Amino acid sequence: MHNKEIEEYVKKYNTELKDIVIPFWETRCVDKEFGGFFTYLDRDGSVYDTDKYMWMQWRVVYMFSTLYVSFAKNENWLKIAKDGFEFLTKHGKAADGSYYFALNRQGKPILAPFNIFSEAFVVMGAAVLYKATKEEKYKKEAMSAMSHYISRIANPKRQWEKGMPDKPKRLSHGHYMILANLGSVMKDSLGVTEYDAKVREAIDLVVDKFWNEEKKVLFENINADHSFDLASCDGRQINPGHGLESMWFVLSYADQNHVPELIPKACKIVKALLEFGWDKEKGGIFYFMDVLGKPHVELQWDMKLWWVHNEAILACLNAYRLTKDEYFWNWFVKLDKYAFEHFKDQKYGEWYAYLNRAGEPTHMLKGGRWKTFFHLPRCLLFSLKQFEMIKAQTH
Amino acid sequence: MHNKEIEEYVKKYNTELKDIVIPFWETRCVDKEFGGFFTYLDRDGSVYDTDKYMWMQWRVVYMFSTLYVSFAKNENWLKIAKDGFEFLTKHGKAADGSYYFALNRQGKPILAPFNIFSEAFVVMGAAVLYKATKEEKYKKEAMSAMSHYISRIANPKRQWEKGMPDKPKRLSHGHYMILANLGSVMKDSLGVTEYDAKVREAIDLVVDKFWNEEKKVLFENINADHSFDLASCDGRQINPGHGLESMWFVLSYADQNHVPELIPKACKIVKALLEFGWDKEKGGIFYFMDVLGKPHVELQWDMKLWWVHNEAILACLNAYRLTKDEYFWNWFVKLDKYAFEHFKDQKYGEWYAYLNRAGEPTHMLKGGRWKTFFHLPRCLLFSLKQFEMIKAQTH
Repeated sequence: MHNKEIEEYVKKYNTELKDIVIPFWETRCVDKEFGGFFTYLDRDGSVYDTDKYMWMQWRVVYMFSTLYVSFAKNENWLKIAKDGFEFLTKHGKAADGSYYFALNRQGKPILAPFNIFSEAFVVMGAAVLYKATKEEKYKKEAMSAMSHYISRIANPKRQWEKGMPDKPKRLSHGHYMILANLGSVMKDSLGVTEYDAKVREAIDLVVDKFWNEEKKVLFENINADHSFDLASCDGRQINPGHGLESMWFVLSYADQNHVPELIPKACKIVKALLEFGWDKEKGGIFYFMDVLGKPHVELQWDMKLWWVHNEAILACLNAYRLTKDEYFWNWFVKLDKYAFEHFKDQKYGEWYAYLNRAGEPTHMLKGGRWKTFFHLPRCLLFSLKQFEMIKAQTH
Repeated sequence: MHNKEIEEYVKKYNTELKDIVIPFWETRCVDKEFGGFFTYLDRDGSVYDTDKYMWMQWRVVYMFSTLYVSFAKNENWLKIAKDGFEFLTKHGKAADGSYYFALNRQGKPILAPFNIFSEAFVVMGAAVLYKATKEEKYKKEAMSAMSHYISRIANPKRQWEKGMPDKPKRLSHGHYMILANLGSVMKDSLGVTEYDAKVREAIDLVVDKFWNEEKKVLFENINADHSFDLASCDGRQINPGHGLESMWFVLSYADQNHVPELIPKACKIVKALLEFGWDKEKGGIFYFMDVLGKPHVELQWDMKLWWVHNEAILACLNAYRLTKDEYFWNWFVKLDKYAFEHFKDQKYGEWYAYLNRAGEPTHMLKGGRWKTFFHLPRCLLFSLKQFEMIKAQTH
């Protein structure tokens, strides 16, 4: 089924990745003078700021090394990743081994190591570099960043924590999702199995406890006793893109680790998030929502973001491959159409990041403080893998 | 000139304030069970969250006491302000006398005192309560909060500061604007003149140094040596509403303190911000802009916010009153029309907070974490004062 269509999608995704997205970044993102990457790229690729935010930097390392490992043995991609690693490990680490949040162009720290997710992206970048090269220093860095990440989970913001003891203790979907993802990366790239139990625990918590059976949607924040708080904005917060990203991790985990009972659970959540998150009036998936439809504190809640649609595409392809349920294929077709029609810049290549509710770009940027060479190429590459696997099933 | 029109505006603003905005809040914002205020009010006034953010809380104290002093001797308004003061001073202060950022409904602190502007709004609320009652405790609290504010200017974020030594040292327009405003409040309400020199210094800095003569616009951030940084997003940041708010403070200061040479400077800036900030395509004033038109890091940059238009109205009325330049009257007429047509909720009263670029409400809320009983009633009240003064001039 769909084999002819899949051939067309393979062609489309392959061209988009190889001829458009990779060259856009490969030719522009390397700071040849100081090292590290330019991520603030305007519509035509020109640089509009030179700060180096750690999440964005390490994601470039991760993505180019992943492409080297999984797409083509292009030595320039490996060099970009390796050079980035050198710059970031030389300049990016505080005395205690944690990672600053941002550096200036020259590599001097400008924002303190207040955020635990910096370490998460170090783990991902360094681990895949190890997979690509088998050089010990990459493994060592990945292990060190992982142990920093784990040690900080109990107090992730350290001295920069603004919450007081009486602030409700909420469990955050993001922390568990990232933990599960990192554990999988550690296993896949480094052969480290010591996080296996933690990964499984995190996944079970997400699919069983963050899922609200009554409201039929995945929550972002739940109380410490796993109950739901419908009286506060934080408690009612829904992030459809985040949930969809989480679910393709789960589906991929379930498949690779032979845990079939997770598949229907994750697919139910994918379905629920698509139905809940899709804007029936204007199309596209909302950024943030309130489960009861009450006002959202974030001004940009109704905007349509590129990464949300990248993650939704991967969730649908994984769900379709594992269930053969046409429902997910049809959603993939719909999401692909929306994404390519609205986010893709026909003139300069790459995708816009931000659309208003009606689907018109509000920003011309291709990269910035929060968009880098990551979600889009990852979506294109991993979708190609899904297409391959789907085709293999039907032969 | 415009006397007939002004009569109509007086009627309109008076009705909006007295019959719509005040009752909306007066009947709903008081938490009769625990004290303090509900500020998360949905379209119909129902409460959608009960956290008590200090800025929002003290602004209610300020506004009800200001209405008591300047609009009508309504004892219930004074009681609301006084009761609020008791709750907030009892629960809101940390051991060192600084103010927490947020409390829960019961008054327990949930967010640490990481932000210097909490103290700023304490100064304003307590000072006007003193003006209303002449009770020493209010003066004492205003003085104490003011000295906390002053002592924290050098390191406003304390342990929560994320900036590292190599982060560019920028002067922020907001700090000087607030300082000038607080100094004026201290003088007007408490008769304290010790901040006079600081106020004048802050005002001169804003009109002379944050103003960029070449780009013809007021910057939000300048370098420590007063130069402009056009290479970074922070350096290029323009906030038209903020600048317009700042300019009506300056005009009011110039008038009250007989500094006529400030008037043409401030009027030039008002004019520049109106021309730069107005959306020629869709109407309304943008929230954030980049001076060179490069991408803005904030997703919501192109939205239209109620308070921006409140401040713009006050800037135009002050400028018109002091110069009799029809340019400012015409802009007032245009802004008033846009604001009442787009922000006012015809069904439930009060104003929407957030519109998309096209002018459609994106949120139904009337209050929240960042909107309270403040900008709109202040705009209506102070506009009525301006109308009175303009009429008095022409008799």
